[in-house]
Amino acid sequence: MARPVLALDIGGTKLAAGVVTPAGDIVAELAGATEAAAAPSEVTEALLDLGRRTMAAAGMQPGDLAAVGISFGGPVDHANGTVITCHHLAGWEGLPLRDMISEQTGLPAVMDNDGNAAALGEVVFGAGRGSRHLLYITVSTGIGAGIVIDGKVHRGANSMAGELGHTHLVPYGPKCTCGRLGYLESLAAGWAIAKAARDALDGGARSALRSVRRDELSAKHVMEMAHSDPLAARIVSRAGEYLGLGIARAVNLLNPEVVAIGGGISQAGEVLMAPVRRGFSRHVMPELGRDLRLVTSELAPRWGLLGAAALAVREASKAQA
Amino acid sequence: MARPVLALDIGGTKLAAGVVTPAGDIVAELAGATEAAAAPSEVTEALLDLGRRTMAAAGMQPGDLAAVGISFGGPVDHANGTVITCHHLAGWEGLPLRDMISEQTGLPAVMDNDGNAAALGEVVFGAGRGSRHLLYITVSTGIGAGIVIDGKVHRGANSMAGELGHTHLVPYGPKCTCGRLGYLESLAAGWAIAKAARDALDGGARSALRSVRRDELSAKHVMEMAHSDPLAARIVSRAGEYLGLGIARAVNLLNPEVVAIGGGISQAGEVLMAPVRRGFSRHVMPELGRDLRLVTSELAPRWGLLGAAALAVREASKAQA
Repeated sequence: MARPVLALDIGGTKLAAGVVTPAGDIVAELAGATEAAAAPSEVTEALLDLGRRTMAAAGMQPGDLAAVGISFGGPVDHANGTVITCHHLAGWEGLPLRDMISEQTGLPAVMDNDGNAAALGEVVFGAGRGSRHLLYITVSTGIGAGIVIDGKVHRGANSMAGELGHTHLVPYGPKCTCGRLGYLESLAAGWAIAKAARDALDGGARSALRSVRRDELSAKHVMEMAHSDPLAARIVSRAGEYLGLGIARAVNLLNPEVVAIGGGISQAGEVLMAPVRRGFSRHVMPELGRDLRLVTSELAPRWGLLGAAALAVREASKAQA
Repeated sequence: MARPVLALDIGGTKLAAGVVTPAGDIVAELAGATEAAAAPSEVTEALLDLGRRTMAAAGMQPGDLAAVGISFGGPVDHANGTVITCHHLAGWEGLPLRDMISEQTGLPAVMDNDGNAAALGEVVFGAGRGSRHLLYITVSTGIGAGIVIDGKVHRGANSMAGELGHTHLVPYGPKCTCGRLGYLESLAAGWAIAKAARDALDGGARSALRSVRRDELSAKHVMEMAHSDPLAARIVSRAGEYLGLGIARAVNLLNPEVVAIGGGISQAGEVLMAPVRRGFSRHVMPELGRDLRLVTSELAPRWGLLGAAALAVREASKAQA
């Protein structure tokens, strides 16, 4: 029987490790916090420690495992196994993280950004099983995408494919984190949903959202209250429709079989997905929308961890072939 | 030495045939008109006749050739070798054109739509030689695209990838041929450029374009006069900037090494390309734009013919492998 893999997930606020079978079953998993102030070497050591403890919890040694997969919350150079930049943590530029982890564990290692890893995870373990072309979209604090073409992750010339969040959507829209106006993130990301709510409250809007302290108001609150509060419902509906438009445009270009939406915001369920489908249907070419499955990820909330596991499972099967 | 191929190009108004070497040199070529009213069998017979005469002009028999490639001006099912629909010619739906041509010539045949064929042509013979990821955009009466990923044409789940023209660009823009508002075609295609000029003239604008009969005014006139006439310059500049925006959005998703622009409108040169680059630079992610080559096609005006030749060359090398 094929051996399990070690999956490591480095997010902006969270580390996670798991021992995962080639079928996607989690034998053991552990989570820890990412200290934003910590040096890369400290975070890496904490991650490796988490990995070792997870293997111990599964009753395994590195020798029992086939490979290690790493999902990183920022752009990475997949071919070289290095971090390009990290928006959440300082000092990671150029770090040869993949080889460091391979050396410490003695296992073949493979690393990708979280969007690409999750897209592959969806194809190997999730909503995209058996599909050749899949678009994965993560909607959390920011918006990113991973593209699978012919069963393989499409990374592009600079390992930067999938920048759906930083793509122009409407003229003179809100200001995006990239500095430009009307980009998808500025209309539908978690931070944009929270900001839209704060702006409306500052403008005097009546809403049950006032029960939350202004500086604590998050997209999560807006999502939760969208079931009963008209302002929250309007904000989520607008974000969902813009997201649907952004997805339709990507689908018109790529013609995938499946679009899977993951990330914290995707957990809102129908309150988000109904407007997403509305915006999508309005703007997709009919021939391209007819057979397409537009679904929420089946890997929630382990997009990064199971994405990392999928990377490792693929790497291990390549090594055997 | 590897044998030449037969290339067949079926456009909306033109048929072309060529005998082309694996290096992209044209040994012989002939062109004919497409009769829009003619039955598919008549057009196919005219095309085959053109092919036979081209082979004769090259002093060759089918046995001297390795394969035949067909570029079709509309969506085709590449796997089955059938026409999906044809916007310019009636009665083509479902026609097994590839196998008909293979049978008549006795050669292995391969068929694709003109956008995909031209994209491959650019990679095999043109501006994209040696590149892995290329986006080809055709700007003529309509706007289409062909995507090459990892050296291969990406066709998508329904053979419909690359519908860049029918992709939403701005809210409440002009009406598109697909019936929706503000789609890229309605802002930058040949018909849209001609319509914008007619609308401006109908509204009383002063312009040298008045020297052309209203019902004969085409995008070509607007392009030619853009060097000296302020109205024409403004229309071309606006179309170019929108095209640049549409390209930037596709690039942010796909991260190609090369974007090549072909089609009749692309022949306008700097009067179009300067605003295209302006719109592109404004909206592309800096990391994705830095190393990218944004160029006009090197295959002009034989996008379809050399695209068809590239399909055949690839098919022949696959058969040998």
